[in-house]
Amino acid sequence: MPVVDITPKPEVYREAKAVGRIRLKKDTVERIRSGMIEKGDPLLTAKIAAVMAAKKTSESIPFCHPIQITHVDVQFRILDERTIEAEATVKARAKTGVEMEALVAVSTALLTIWDMTKQYEKDRRGQYPTTEIFGIKVLAKVKEEGK
Amino acid sequence: MPVVDITPKPEVYREAKAVGRIRLKKDTVERIRSGMIEKGDPLLTAKIAAVMAAKKTSESIPFCHPIQITHVDVQFRILDERTIEAEATVKARAKTGVEMEALVAVSTALLTIWDMTKQYEKDRRGQYPTTEIFGIKVLAKVKEEGK
Amino acid sequence: MPVVDITPKPEVYREAKAVGRIRLKKDTVERIRSGMIEKGDPLLTAKIAAVMAAKKTSESIPFCHPIQITHVDVQFRILDERTIEAEATVKARAKTGVEMEALVAVSTALLTIWDMTKQYEKDRRGQYPTTEIFGIKVLAKVKEEGK
Amino acid sequence: MPVVDITPKPEVYREAKAVGRIRLKKDTVERIRSGMIEKGDPLLTAKIAAVMAAKKTSESIPFCHPIQITHVDVQFRILDERTIEAEATVKARAKTGVEMEALVAVSTALLTIWDMTKQYEKDRRGQYPTTEIFGIKVLAKVKEEGK
Amino acid sequence: MPVVDITPKPEVYREAKAVGRIRLKKDTVERIRSGMIEKGDPLLTAKIAAVMAAKKTSESIPFCHPIQITHVDVQFRILDERTIEAEATVKARAKTGVEMEALVAVSTALLTIWDMTKQYEKDRRGQYPTTEIFGIKVLAKVKEEGK
Amino acid sequence: MPVVDITPKPEVYREAKAVGRIRLKKDTVERIRSGMIEKGDPLLTAKIAAVMAAKKTSESIPFCHPIQITHVDVQFRILDERTIEAEATVKARAKTGVEMEALVAVSTALLTIWDMTKQYEKDRRGQYPTTEIFGIKVLAKVKEEGK
Repeated sequence: MPVVDITPKPEVYREAKAVGRIRLKKDTVERIRSGMIEKGDPLLTAKIAAVMAAKKTSESIPFCHPIQITHVDVQFRILDERTIEAEATVKARAKTGVEMEALVAVSTALLTIWDMTKQYEKDRRGQYPTTEIFGIKVLAKVKEEGK
Repeated sequence: MPVVDITPKPEVYREAKAVGRIRLKKDTVERIRSGMIEKGDPLLTAKIAAVMAAKKTSESIPFCHPIQITHVDVQFRILDERTIEAEATVKARAKTGVEMEALVAVSTALLTIWDMTKQYEKDRRGQYPTTEIFGIKVLAKVKEEGK
Repeated sequence: MPVVDITPKPEVYREAKAVGRIRLKKDTVERIRSGMIEKGDPLLTAKIAAVMAAKKTSESIPFCHPIQITHVDVQFRILDERTIEAEATVKARAKTGVEMEALVAVSTALLTIWDMTKQYEKDRRGQYPTTEIFGIKVLAKVKEEGK
Repeated sequence: MPVVDITPKPEVYREAKAVGRIRLKKDTVERIRSGMIEKGDPLLTAKIAAVMAAKKTSESIPFCHPIQITHVDVQFRILDERTIEAEATVKARAKTGVEMEALVAVSTALLTIWDMTKQYEKDRRGQYPTTEIFGIKVLAKVKEEGK
Repeated sequence: MPVVDITPKPEVYREAKAVGRIRLKKDTVERIRSGMIEKGDPLLTAKIAAVMAAKKTSESIPFCHPIQITHVDVQFRILDERTIEAEATVKARAKTGVEMEALVAVSTALLTIWDMTKQYEKDRRGQYPTTEIFGIKVLAKVKEEGK
Repeated sequence: MPVVDITPKPEVYREAKAVGRIRLKKDTVERIRSGMIEKGDPLLTAKIAAVMAAKKTSESIPFCHPIQITHVDVQFRILDERTIEAEATVKARAKTGVEMEALVAVSTALLTIWDMTKQYEKDRRGQYPTTEIFGIKVLAKVKEEGK
């Protein structure tokens, strides 16, 4: 029974927060900080990509139920000279949780940062010896009956 | 100039391999190994989701060029009692590299495994204290003029 | 806060009407009137394209909330010998207005008419000296608590 | 009035079951039965494709209303040595019926089986002399006010 | 190896023709013939839906390669007083055949006719006792090296 | 013959430039200029939306051929205290022109600006008395055989 039958479940307030990180070169993080990425602002682009991906979660994850999310936000923090963290918050009134939506938002945000900074991360042979996405986790899930 | 102008570049053979890992509970990995996941086979579902996502990379990553990929494959390995690794290979004749396609495939595969095993990973309060996606990297990029 | 948090808002009846116009050659409008467009009926094709686009508004406008629209209609009027007007009406019970859905419907309708009549609008050098889309406006937005 | 105005209709419990069949070569059905299809498990792949297509019904059928389906399931039966039957069940609380979603699921399932078994169905000239999809019907529609 | 590796194959001229039929009530076919379907012209709507679906075949059939089709056409024939036939032709220069694109076009055309004529096909209890899609076949596949 | 058969046409260099304008309140344009739009940067968001829409032109305009565009750029100019102009450039090697892609980019950019500035444009009754999109035109189409 791949798609769990949520028909009889009540619609309640749902919220989920997910985080994830990308490790870049010092030089790349410095460029992001100082607005020197030639393709454009990677964090703003990543936020937009993340929001759009969260809205289409049920199209990329086969057995996710379609959910009309009522809020998505994505925030970035430069954790240290090589690490950027993305945190996504998703809200909805729904019959099932929204953690997959938050995870999809975070993953898409980090992949977009990768794409926006490719030219600085590649070595001479076109390889990415140090770039890495890691630490994708669900920070918190909320389900409130009365809200 | 967000979308790099690749018009004058020649179409050459491109290949990229990316990997990534998900850390699950021992019990969940054991269930995957023994075919005991109630929602269905998570690895086969993840493979299909990954292939479909790779084909649509330019729809989720804002400045990726549309590429007609000619091959995608996704393989899984149980690395240890808590870790599953996904490896994606993408091929195309194209004006630009296919590493984003391989990264999108790997990310979608791992997110799908998360979705398929949610019920075993959640604790009593509905949280995911240990589930984590990590180690998403590009293993190798190939560009061969004569091929 | 790009995606406005509409979680606590009540679902109420929403309606929006938008209009827009396309200026074509006299000959093209005459062809539309007399059913002589070789590619097919441009107004019917435009209506279908508009309805399909309205349903996917949240996929093309980054911070639009997904809304389950319950009605879309698109009507066309030949205003004068060079001008066609499209008017779209969208309805839903939703937490936020549906004017973007109506605007997307109108824009897509007019772009489709352009595409369907390209061969008559182009001059010898393949240019479009006179074709123009204009007057895209929201005619009225309705929000009724009790409906 | 292409898109029927369902705004004033109440949301009630909806369910629809559709079936359809594909006629293959004996050898192909035998291969499916014994897990010998080189491209992978055609029935599992077909189920996933069907579920994903059902969720996007309003994107492929122009005047279908968007519906948040709360359950989809697809089951297969080998009816005889040349025939496989797909049966899809879709549920939702909605203002309109879900039979188109069930029909889209069944069609996509059968088309995916065709795609997965192409190499065994084609004759020497690359033609499909015997492969055929047929018997696509709605078995039952349910609408329950009180549920 | 779910997605067959077509990287080394040459791009050659491809063409495929598929057909399929829908059985309706006499009254419904008569209404189609005389332009009396309230939702709009079902055959024109079906043609547009079919063309749009054919272009997105690789998004609905999991292991289909993305192909840039260069032509799609869909024609309808009223075969007898209860039967309508759809025939789709797809062309492309591609590394692989386009029969799945033609089959997707035919299926979507027939499903759209179903959707457009629902109100005439349903009996008093909302069931479809006689409506049926059948005879979906590939008529011919062409592959021409020199073209 | 809705989808023109471009199979035999050669792939040549294509370029198209389209423009369009949006009329806003003075206050809104001043806010855009000074970075005071609460939802985020409307021009950067509009650029991203436009690029993503251009890549999917064949999904929204029914009879557009799928084209692998190799470049899109969108630039904005504040023309006067109430008017913003968007200009899109699209390039590809293709069998057909890319003007629809440029027009879709411009339209989506302007619609996104509308969405990002809604709260400043609405009057007390929630209406948009002055907001208007106009002047959507193709500036130039280029087709170069030898490039």
